Amino acid sequence: MRLRKIKGALETLQNDSKYMVNKPIEMRGKWHTLFNNENPISIEIGCGKGKFIIGMAKLFPNINFIGIEKFDSVMLRTLQACSLENLSNVKLILLDALELETVFENSEVDDIFLNFSDPWPKAKHAKRRLTSDLYLECYEKILNSKGSIIQKTDNRGLFEFSLESFSQNGWYISNISLDLHQNEPEDNIRTEFEEKWAIHGPIYKLIAKKEKKEKKK
Amino acid sequence: MRLRKIKGALETLQNDSKYMVNKPIEMRGKWHTLFNNENPISIEIGCGKGKFIIGMAKLFPNINFIGIEKFDSVMLRTLQACSLENLSNVKLILLDALELETVFENSEVDDIFLNFSDPWPKAKHAKRRLTSDLYLECYEKILNSKGSIIQKTDNRGLFEFSLESFSQNGWYISNISLDLHQNEPEDNIRTEFEEKWAIHGPIYKLIAKKEKKEKKK
Repeated sequence: MRLRKIKGALETLQNDSKYMVNKPIEMRGKWHTLFNNENPISIEIGCGKGKFIIGMAKLFPNINFIGIEKFDSVMLRTLQACSLENLSNVKLILLDALELETVFENSEVDDIFLNFSDPWPKAKHAKRRLTSDLYLECYEKILNSKGSIIQKTDNRGLFEFSLESFSQNGWYISNISLDLHQNEPEDNIRTEFEEKWAIHGPIYKLIAKKEKKEKKK
Repeated sequence: MRLRKIKGALETLQNDSKYMVNKPIEMRGKWHTLFNNENPISIEIGCGKGKFIIGMAKLFPNINFIGIEKFDSVMLRTLQACSLENLSNVKLILLDALELETVFENSEVDDIFLNFSDPWPKAKHAKRRLTSDLYLECYEKILNSKGSIIQKTDNRGLFEFSLESFSQNGWYISNISLDLHQNEPEDNIRTEFEEKWAIHGPIYKLIAKKEKKEKKK
């Protein structure tokens, strides 16, 4: 999600201490101490207006959710939505996903959610897609051995790119749906974007896992 | 592949003893004794004019290949092609794939190849597609725990159906290619059909595996 630059967004984020973790590097390897429990950690990369992470946090109170967002003006929307709730299992980090390793130790994360990421449709921008090689390398490091990536998108091009990129990087894919809302699982939390765009076409979903033992490249 | 009915096809098959196994039920659980080795067993369901199974048998002399075909007139073409070769690692069975279990013991098979199967495009014929639920159940039984299904098709509808059917039945998919010939692997043996149709559009490929321990339904 892209929003127009909002003046003072960064300052507002930096002044929040309930949800924002403004020095996330210091939490590397210690996220459980922040949440004060040993529950699994799920991260969402690109959290838009926050509907997904808030819905998930309520549905799964025994999972800790961390929202990652690169743009301060977008994160402001997530923070504003979270601030209307009282959630002890949500934290937010302003970060580029390529820097995940600076913030999470190897195997510290249980699941990664990619919801309606920017499709970067031009071929010359393929590297910027959140399922391109460099990103998958990052995810592989921070995910634990049973960890998954759960991706939803309305963009067929991005979905097909992801199927091939995961395959080429030795990931296994399951739970492929080419029209998620046709048989929508009860626990599917719709994002704002998903709600809005589902009427225009199908929503695609996949789950990808990598066996950490045998590293095929 | 469908061919016009050829007169006397069945008789010709029944008279062959080099490649045809005319009482395959008797070999259930004993295929290794027929090949006289302990090599892995790969089966191809629907073997057309035989180019794939012959190519594979030559490329992988330490794998035993068994071609399965339902129609005698098609099998005759496979047999005729095999008869021009001297292959000790190829056998052929006239059989409906739904009856695989009568011919193979649980876990007796290492890999199953589905090449350019009939797409049965009408929704009311979906059950006849070789990756529909009932077929996947059969394959699961006869495949060993490391076994795979390797599918190639030029039919986008069948490919998408397969992605979803494997997913719904708890299989994991890897090595997805949406244009196999763009980066064609060296060991890709093209079928006659593949050779002919590749100029009209992309060839799709996937590999599906099922973890036999955890049976999700």
